[in-house]
Amino acid sequence: MTVATLGARDVRKLRDFYAGLGWPLLVDSEEFVAFGTQGALLALFALRELEADACAKASAPETGFRGFTLAINVESRERVDSTVAAIRSRGGRITKEPVDATLFDGRSAYFADPEDNYWEIVYFGGGGEAGEAIRRIGKE
Amino acid sequence: MTVATLGARDVRKLRDFYAGLGWPLLVDSEEFVAFGTQGALLALFALRELEADACAKASAPETGFRGFTLAINVESRERVDSTVAAIRSRGGRITKEPVDATLFDGRSAYFADPEDNYWEIVYFGGGGEAGEAIRRIGKE
Repeated sequence: MTVATLGARDVRKLRDFYAGLGWPLLVDSEEFVAFGTQGALLALFALRELEADACAKASAPETGFRGFTLAINVESRERVDSTVAAIRSRGGRITKEPVDATLFDGRSAYFADPEDNYWEIVYFGGGGEAGEAIRRIGKE
Repeated sequence: MTVATLGARDVRKLRDFYAGLGWPLLVDSEEFVAFGTQGALLALFALRELEADACAKASAPETGFRGFTLAINVESRERVDSTVAAIRSRGGRITKEPVDATLFDGRSAYFADPEDNYWEIVYFGGGGEAGEAIRRIGKE
């Protein structure tokens, strides 16, 4: 997966939120915005335009959790906490404070952007193919 | 972004769909599945578990377009068409047949998985920072 695109009610407002987190803008137009992140790009596109572009059969809800999350892996437990503190200071809504994970060796927290897109900030200490893949992406 | 996680009504069924596309499984448990792709990982997690994990305030709808898309960049216009043909032959529902893009230099199509998660198959021929970033991800 190379790009995740969020359908936005207000592209500019959401753009300003992510730009305010310090994420690097690669494309910055009125209708479409893209940020470069480790792993995959994050794109913002007006929700109704995205629906039309995808030939989606029904309209999406505009608010609330919509059944998906995006994640940012960080390299240590401490980095989960410091990243959450930075996001909070820039207006991110923390939905889950950092806690050691129960399902895997690591630590995790969540925040939501102003349009209820949920992001996990996660340290994964486990090994295996998943651990290797995450560490490889993190080095890019 | 290192991982996109889809909340699944039926993790096993969705797992079988993506495994059937030939995507490499990195984690394959009853409740949680992860596939390695170029760019970021794709994870599947039971929808209600994902909601609880993220401390989401409301339940997500279980069907229909939910306002986001994930994309796979390919290296040529022809590859958009051949990828779509392969996905169709493995049971993917094509929501938009390949067409040359109007908003950028390239070609694009969409498919939906069995739980209405939408994927764009896209060739981006443009340059700039976005073009460079996408080509860098594609080489990994």
